[in-house]
Amino acid sequence: MSVSAWDPSMKPDVNDAMCPSRGVLEHVTSRWGVLILIALLERSYRFSELRRHVGGVSEKMLAQTLQNLERDGFVHRDAKPVIPPRVDYTLTDLGREAAERVRALALWTEKRTLTVLENREEYDKARS
Amino acid sequence: MSVSAWDPSMKPDVNDAMCPSRGVLEHVTSRWGVLILIALLERSYRFSELRRHVGGVSEKMLAQTLQNLERDGFVHRDAKPVIPPRVDYTLTDLGREAAERVRALALWTEKRTLTVLENREEYDKARS
Repeated sequence: MSVSAWDPSMKPDVNDAMCPSRGVLEHVTSRWGVLILIALLERSYRFSELRRHVGGVSEKMLAQTLQNLERDGFVHRDAKPVIPPRVDYTLTDLGREAAERVRALALWTEKRTLTVLENREEYDKARS
Repeated sequence: MSVSAWDPSMKPDVNDAMCPSRGVLEHVTSRWGVLILIALLERSYRFSELRRHVGGVSEKMLAQTLQNLERDGFVHRDAKPVIPPRVDYTLTDLGREAAERVRALALWTEKRTLTVLENREEYDKARS
């Protein structure tokens, strides 16, 4: 949806399948989007550093996710005019707001993972 | 990963592709998981009510997502012994913790959607 098609009286609603907020939410909750936002909350990263930091991401998915985040205005891509070329990725202020909320969820998840594994074991046992 | 395979000295790390915390994070950030958790934060829902509330979800995806959330211990499925059968879905305490963090992110997203649409337009204009 383009901004010009936006009706200012419209209230964004993630429960509405046609609302553009849903696409934004999907970018900040995407598998790699989450991990990239959290990494960039600590410091700026170069592409190859991010690739090492975020376990399991392919070059293609990292490039595509960074481009989505840049287009949304969450990530700033800073290409330094040096030889060899150097590109740093940094959070914008908007990206920092998103990343803080995403990190809160990820940290909570790490803290609760063992409990969830126990719940799954109990669930499976009750049904076997 | 089963609980018995869990090494207590292991610190969950969502950046580790092999860490089970990543699967938990994917459940709470999945497209439908997010919307279901937020809905259940308000009140309990019946299946058909949830289906109407969460725009665009198919019966199959709703059932599958609810089952994942139930197995993780986020959602309690309460089958009432009445005729016709009635099933209510409610958040557990653990699910409420997750849902509060997910809601914070979704509300922020709704508030910032117009800004993101503007950023996208600017990005595309600079490259056309």
